[in-house]
Amino acid sequence: MRLLEERIIREGRILEGDILKVDSFVNHQVDMQLMSQLAKELAARFASEPITKVLTIEASGIAFAGVVALELGVPMVFAKKHSHLYIDPDLLMAPVESFTTKNTYNAVVSRRYLSPDDVVLIVDDFLAAGRALSGLVDLCRQAGATVAGAGIIIEKAYQHGGDTLRASGLRIESMARIASMDPAKGTIEFTS
Amino acid sequence: MRLLEERIIREGRILEGDILKVDSFVNHQVDMQLMSQLAKELAARFASEPITKVLTIEASGIAFAGVVALELGVPMVFAKKHSHLYIDPDLLMAPVESFTTKNTYNAVVSRRYLSPDDVVLIVDDFLAAGRALSGLVDLCRQAGATVAGAGIIIEKAYQHGGDTLRASGLRIESMARIASMDPAKGTIEFTS
Repeated sequence: MRLLEERIIREGRILEGDILKVDSFVNHQVDMQLMSQLAKELAARFASEPITKVLTIEASGIAFAGVVALELGVPMVFAKKHSHLYIDPDLLMAPVESFTTKNTYNAVVSRRYLSPDDVVLIVDDFLAAGRALSGLVDLCRQAGATVAGAGIIIEKAYQHGGDTLRASGLRIESMARIASMDPAKGTIEFTS
Repeated sequence: MRLLEERIIREGRILEGDILKVDSFVNHQVDMQLMSQLAKELAARFASEPITKVLTIEASGIAFAGVVALELGVPMVFAKKHSHLYIDPDLLMAPVESFTTKNTYNAVVSRRYLSPDDVVLIVDDFLAAGRALSGLVDLCRQAGATVAGAGIIIEKAYQHGGDTLRASGLRIESMARIASMDPAKGTIEFTS
């Protein structure tokens, strides 16, 4: 979406370590009007799917996932990040390696809130290597739920996590797809 | 709000250690339609205040704070929880002791997103001892921002954290106020 791309160009800051900082409108301060517009767009793209639930992971996916769920008229579930592994038959768990910290945490969801009757739209703010998204898909498979696809605010297309997941059959709709970033010049190019 | 009270009675589970589990509709699976109705009610109660920002803390306050911000037409900012203290002149920090874990973490907000020009509505899912809310008020004071008040989904009124903060001059609007819970009988009473 051009609206989002323009905002990323205007306010995004490229930091060392391949980090795109969009904390003025996406993941620290959040422009909820923009999130709501993106949610309408995403809901329209998945209008033909009988979605029963929106799934995200704490914390920065929650604001967007909430308004997507509101738009679709279904509940939102957010997976929690647990640093310790403990066995609980009521919980679904999937290990995820963090791109930023390199630590591995467990994405955890109660079995109460994901079932074989669910058709799930997975939502997150960023898609880069695709580890968090893979973990959420894993949780859905463990629950026997159907994954309708994934909705992402910003995909770093040059990291190819999205390509790999698409090749495995996952439908992914990203509101902005970054082709390249130049930290020296501060420029950002999008896929056409 | 009767709507919320009825939902708490129907779905809330009282666990050992004075814990009210509402994770089927508030803080793991989230009923966004309900959140949106509560947000409209909260926005109406603060309609006379020139609010410029909604402030919450990750993770379980974000879904509600997001739709409150949407209702008010202002950005939402969520404070992050940092377990380590490190000095960064760009960050505002306030220590908060967790009621559940007894650990102390730092509530952290970038100075970029709270300023003396801001009139802030603080939002959270629960108010019990009032520690998280006090920490968020502290962050606003450090920023020189004005606090219009606080909006809470569920207040455990019998823990008196809310009373203490009200006595200090903070306006708090809670959508449901619990007077008592009986874990043996599984009953919940609300303040009238």
